[in-house]
Amino acid sequence: MGKVFTDISISLDGFVAGPNPTLEEPLGEGGERLHDWVVKLETWKRRHGREGGETNPDSDVVEEAVAATGATVMGRNMFSGGFGTGPWEEDPNPDGWWGDDPPFKGPVFVITHHPRETLEKQGGTSFTFVTDGIESAVEQAKAAAGDKGVNVAGGAGVIQEALAAGLLDEMQIHFAPLLLGGGTPFFTDGEPSRLEPVRVLASPAVTHMKYRVLKD
Amino acid sequence: MGKVFTDISISLDGFVAGPNPTLEEPLGEGGERLHDWVVKLETWKRRHGREGGETNPDSDVVEEAVAATGATVMGRNMFSGGFGTGPWEEDPNPDGWWGDDPPFKGPVFVITHHPRETLEKQGGTSFTFVTDGIESAVEQAKAAAGDKGVNVAGGAGVIQEALAAGLLDEMQIHFAPLLLGGGTPFFTDGEPSRLEPVRVLASPAVTHMKYRVLKD
Repeated sequence: MGKVFTDISISLDGFVAGPNPTLEEPLGEGGERLHDWVVKLETWKRRHGREGGETNPDSDVVEEAVAATGATVMGRNMFSGGFGTGPWEEDPNPDGWWGDDPPFKGPVFVITHHPRETLEKQGGTSFTFVTDGIESAVEQAKAAAGDKGVNVAGGAGVIQEALAAGLLDEMQIHFAPLLLGGGTPFFTDGEPSRLEPVRVLASPAVTHMKYRVLKD
Repeated sequence: MGKVFTDISISLDGFVAGPNPTLEEPLGEGGERLHDWVVKLETWKRRHGREGGETNPDSDVVEEAVAATGATVMGRNMFSGGFGTGPWEEDPNPDGWWGDDPPFKGPVFVITHHPRETLEKQGGTSFTFVTDGIESAVEQAKAAAGDKGVNVAGGAGVIQEALAAGLLDEMQIHFAPLLLGGGTPFFTDGEPSRLEPVRVLASPAVTHMKYRVLKD
């Protein structure tokens, strides 16, 4: 059975988004720069239906995560692109903001308070809505993933919840070389955990730090 | 002229000390583990007057920082070991908690509100008390350091102050493989900064990430 893991880009000062997010700048001031390293890659562009892009050691890290992913878990907020947390009929964007051919190319389990039917998209992506919490979402994702792993994609709150519940086997942090100075922190106060470094890879654009989460 | 730099051990979730510090456990719950990687090194033990210890790639990182240090800047709290911030005559430990032969082996500039004469210790360490702020302390340290650099040693607040004032040229973070889950954060809300990765070195015990602080 594959691992339950997360891959997240944060600033060196620990933020997943900068201060003062707006509709025009949903990642807050400077927050887009967290993803500068990935959006220029060929592998990212391809999965988002675009041409071109770079191939470099950072792409290998992304390809590895993609290859390891059999199913994805995310929060309602990540599905909706930050719009609406209430009932679906009040959501301005009930089909999510990931377009007709989302980059997930497989089953996605969305944690929500509001039940609805599974949403099938092009390219192999399906969104299944889970109303009984993160453990259930991860369990369903594991069953759907087969031999592959489960990627707990976000947002930060969902990842922290998975960590606190002891559901994460591995955590890979992509440290972008910047200080946002404020915004949405990735880590929130929680239980202490011991980690075992698995691998560190550095490029001029980002440092990838992969840890095994040790369970006492 | 040497650089103004800092070297600090933090948890992956960004804490320099764990929650609930006490006199017996001044680094808080679990906080001692931030320094597990360094206290076992021969170079650390030698500078603290002890025998034995390991020599490994982590020691090279420490030796490099030691060799680059011509003078040190610290806050009153770091000098006093967390005891007393009032007038010196009320301080339970006015000579500091670094012993008769402190590990600094050179001039140290202590930022305080309370003037006093320079304190000379064995082994080349002197503590000079600076009452007109961090810029003055760094300036005096630069003059004392000659061709070498200035190590802004801590605490976290003093390092953040130096960063915010644009005084830091380089920042090396030693990420310990653990989540403290709470405590004293290294980074506090501040100005955004761009960083340029200088070097990343990883061992099973710690990941050393050195950045140049870019000044716009």
